[in-house]
Amino acid sequence: MILKDKILKTVRDVVDFPQKGVIFKDITPVLADIKLYNEIIEDLAGHFKDKNITKVAGLESRGFIFGISLAQKLNVPFVPIRKKGKLPYKKISTDYQLEYGTASIEIHTDAVNENDNVLLADDLLATGGTMNAAVQLIKKLKGNVAGCAFVIELKFLNGKEKLKDVDYYSIADI
Amino acid sequence: MILKDKILKTVRDVVDFPQKGVIFKDITPVLADIKLYNEIIEDLAGHFKDKNITKVAGLESRGFIFGISLAQKLNVPFVPIRKKGKLPYKKISTDYQLEYGTASIEIHTDAVNENDNVLLADDLLATGGTMNAAVQLIKKLKGNVAGCAFVIELKFLNGKEKLKDVDYYSIADI
Repeated sequence: MILKDKILKTVRDVVDFPQKGVIFKDITPVLADIKLYNEIIEDLAGHFKDKNITKVAGLESRGFIFGISLAQKLNVPFVPIRKKGKLPYKKISTDYQLEYGTASIEIHTDAVNENDNVLLADDLLATGGTMNAAVQLIKKLKGNVAGCAFVIELKFLNGKEKLKDVDYYSIADI
Repeated sequence: MILKDKILKTVRDVVDFPQKGVIFKDITPVLADIKLYNEIIEDLAGHFKDKNITKVAGLESRGFIFGISLAQKLNVPFVPIRKKGKLPYKKISTDYQLEYGTASIEIHTDAVNENDNVLLADDLLATGGTMNAAVQLIKKLKGNVAGCAFVIELKFLNGKEKLKDVDYYSIADI
């Protein structure tokens, strides 16, 4: 079976989470299948291995998981991008739209510099709002965004529109 | 230099975070040193490699990072233990005390069963309140807690009192 099909067979659909009408893609069964998980990391790292990645940044919280594994596989530093108020040191923020209101994500100012070629990682591409905010954070620190890696992409939410100028890659688009 | 000293030299003290009077141990410089990070994972996995670990559970959020790396190293499933309201499927909760009020963490009910020998992972042992709650979650699901792995331990907060019956291990205690 190809990797995409293995992932889609393993991910669990949870109806009405976090709110009525939403079908949530629960990736915990993927984390419970460490062989499949390792294949996912191999595939994502393989896609970006010739892009001279200097750092991998992961988006809190599930992006921390795939992000650190990618950083280890590519043998580069890992940078956490966190929700507002969580990072302790000097940092910058970017706001992004939620369905109602806005949220912020943050990065340490010393985490990325103009020589960096950063791979951003998260588990799932939905509307692309958070990932686009992460792209802006890297650019504010004058880093280059080498790409964005996702395990799953929900195509009907059209997240790629927000990542137009970015080399983004998802293994399993549905 | 021994690993403990490398960690303590690399971790950054941030004064008055998250509130006045606290000196926060910022581990982001450890994540930025992927060679040191790999040594940490080798050391933690080495300590527990003969304990027949069947699963590694990581505590949101920084415990996700060390936890998934340990799960990969020990070649066992990874289980996320999350803050209230984040896990989508059938789950159980345990409350724990904060300085003011209480908080909850949760685990999926299908994440652990009575045949499991679970290693819990987090970056830092402080008062031990959260990790003790995580131990209770594993026990509620009839799993065995094989141990708790930390990178850093703040001895003056006496977290070991809350982990009395557990094989806990920290690399760098201060």
